[in-house]
Amino acid sequence: MSVDRYQKGIEYLEKMNPDSFKILKKELEDVAPDMARYVAEFAYGDIYSRPGLDFKTRELVTIAAITTLGCAQTQLKSHIHGALNAGCTPQEIIEVIIQMAVYAGFPKALNGLYSADEVFTERNEKLDE
Amino acid sequence: MSVDRYQKGIEYLEKMNPDSFKILKKELEDVAPDMARYVAEFAYGDIYSRPGLDFKTRELVTIAAITTLGCAQTQLKSHIHGALNAGCTPQEIIEVIIQMAVYAGFPKALNGLYSADEVFTERNEKLDE
Amino acid sequence: MSVDRYQKGIEYLEKMNPDSFKILKKELEDVAPDMARYVAEFAYGDIYSRPGLDFKTRELVTIAAITTLGCAQTQLKSHIHGALNAGCTPQEIIEVIIQMAVYAGFPKALNGLYSADEVFTERNEKLDE
Amino acid sequence: MSVDRYQKGIEYLEKMNPDSFKILKKELEDVAPDMARYVAEFAYGDIYSRPGLDFKTRELVTIAAITTLGCAQTQLKSHIHGALNAGCTPQEIIEVIIQMAVYAGFPKALNGLYSADEVFTERNEKLDE
Amino acid sequence: MSVDRYQKGIEYLEKMNPDSFKILKKELEDVAPDMARYVAEFAYGDIYSRPGLDFKTRELVTIAAITTLGCAQTQLKSHIHGALNAGCTPQEIIEVIIQMAVYAGFPKALNGLYSADEVFTERNEKLDE
Amino acid sequence: MSVDRYQKGIEYLEKMNPDSFKILKKELEDVAPDMARYVAEFAYGDIYSRPGLDFKTRELVTIAAITTLGCAQTQLKSHIHGALNAGCTPQEIIEVIIQMAVYAGFPKALNGLYSADEVFTERNEKLDE
Repeated sequence: MSVDRYQKGIEYLEKMNPDSFKILKKELEDVAPDMARYVAEFAYGDIYSRPGLDFKTRELVTIAAITTLGCAQTQLKSHIHGALNAGCTPQEIIEVIIQMAVYAGFPKALNGLYSADEVFTERNEKLDE
Repeated sequence: MSVDRYQKGIEYLEKMNPDSFKILKKELEDVAPDMARYVAEFAYGDIYSRPGLDFKTRELVTIAAITTLGCAQTQLKSHIHGALNAGCTPQEIIEVIIQMAVYAGFPKALNGLYSADEVFTERNEKLDE
Repeated sequence: MSVDRYQKGIEYLEKMNPDSFKILKKELEDVAPDMARYVAEFAYGDIYSRPGLDFKTRELVTIAAITTLGCAQTQLKSHIHGALNAGCTPQEIIEVIIQMAVYAGFPKALNGLYSADEVFTERNEKLDE
Repeated sequence: MSVDRYQKGIEYLEKMNPDSFKILKKELEDVAPDMARYVAEFAYGDIYSRPGLDFKTRELVTIAAITTLGCAQTQLKSHIHGALNAGCTPQEIIEVIIQMAVYAGFPKALNGLYSADEVFTERNEKLDE
Repeated sequence: MSVDRYQKGIEYLEKMNPDSFKILKKELEDVAPDMARYVAEFAYGDIYSRPGLDFKTRELVTIAAITTLGCAQTQLKSHIHGALNAGCTPQEIIEVIIQMAVYAGFPKALNGLYSADEVFTERNEKLDE
Repeated sequence: MSVDRYQKGIEYLEKMNPDSFKILKKELEDVAPDMARYVAEFAYGDIYSRPGLDFKTRELVTIAAITTLGCAQTQLKSHIHGALNAGCTPQEIIEVIIQMAVYAGFPKALNGLYSADEVFTERNEKLDE
């Protein structure tokens, strides 16, 4: 049932990134409330909830993908929060983004690092600890 | 020393994907032999060899990035080989590529799955085993 | 219920592009059968089935998007079939792709036109009729 | 004659989005005045003025393309204005952008929706009316 | 006058890459003959014919751009021919494409080098001569 | 030796764009100091320092590439500074970016021109002098 997919997605989001979904829902409520539902149902209820890959790795591959897109810093920062909430270390996140210099080029990797720096500063996360 | 970076890269490549580097070197020998050297020195010697992220995760985030690029199926297949050689299961690779439907769109995710299917068939890899 | 979403998607696909979904399902059955289900459920059952935009326009904006991606000619050709099946004229499809020269650049627009040419030839579609 | 192409383009722009062209011309007058001329002559005089596709659909496929680019929010907002001026409803615009989640991924679709929200708020446009 | 723009474009193309325009015109004659005209008029008659940048540099920056797109190997090869016809050495072309590893990532640079290798082999061009 | 690569890169950067590397190093010192080193060693020490292409052309092809990426305005502006420092005229830079309308589409070319305008204004550079 669709309710289950939404519920599953919300449970995942509650654990991983509760604030970002609340903000998303609020931002979309006047313009496209169904889109917030699709995020919960499809992105998290269907995809992230699949077995076969742990939460930490799911967040790291998402960070790789969004760094490669290069134009979605809001979503990138939201998933850097998600990765930290999932138990990734700042260093692991930085390693993924540095590696993107090889696959997506230096400008996108640099912009990804700036976003990581903002999130780490905001959360007072330190590297190498 | 530069020799060390090359050596470190080659050692990594020998373990992870020896054939693909041999092919690359051969393909580039007439047109840009330095480029094969940069792949060994920079991509593998500098970046992949960094501590802070295990080999399996490095291959999975690369698969995410190249699926998102959408236009480099040769390199994608080479890293699917690399991920399998690093000990990733076919299922983990498939999970990463399916997840790209959310971040890079369905067409790129589908093309990534076709590339994975080709590699799995070639190596006689089975899902869920 | 999820069955309804799948059913709605399949009904849409039966009307618009039955062959391409059969091919997709066959191609994915060994590697990622869930992905074919997501195409039916999410792409067609959730999104294409939404009221508020007619089928013809949905196919034309998809053609614009995939031409802009530039790296998914199989999916582009599938949606050119879909657009024709939805009642778009060859001319309307060509107009969309030509217009992409302005937004995505000439190389991607040219490659889109080659794909359109292949589909029109295969179906014996003529322009301006 | 080139004058005709410019004139045709300007007439189109006067109808569809007069302010945005005035702003564009002003912005480019010191750095690349010819570029504003090419926008009028080529993009509007040559392409948008072609028969075979109505103005509304031209704006909707442009919105699909720019949402897929993902990095041109100024131009996206300008074409959301254009689409509304051409007679598209807010709902039709939202449908196009939501559909881009399937083809360009969720992050680009979300950023497209935020741009639409800004334009609708500025113009006091309401959905579903 | 439009005739002049077409004429100017054709003259440029005759000098730089006569075969590729003939092929293009032939390929588009059934599907979008106007598009070949726009290539001559706009791309070559308006843009390439502008003073302020020599032909060789125009071809090299185009090679950089198409390598960065990553999905238009036919057009890339056509401009590698154009660059050679304009007097660029094979080495200069290779330098531009190698440099794209930094800005567009290694996979796109590698695919650019393969295209260059095909063109050089076809024309029997040697590096370092 | 690696020291040489770094040294070579720094020498290049000192000549071409000393401020931007100082800023980069400062920005990355808490989050990924190695990344600044890779910029100096690989991007400048290995690639830009290669013989076979002059500095001016290297900056112009980089401007073409980053305009085509479309999402890295900070890096684009840094290389517009670099191009001017290398002796390119404002007009040559503008020509490259205008030409990107053909290969990357008008929205990315326009955004590139806005970045150029900002840099020229900041440096009080005039076109056509």
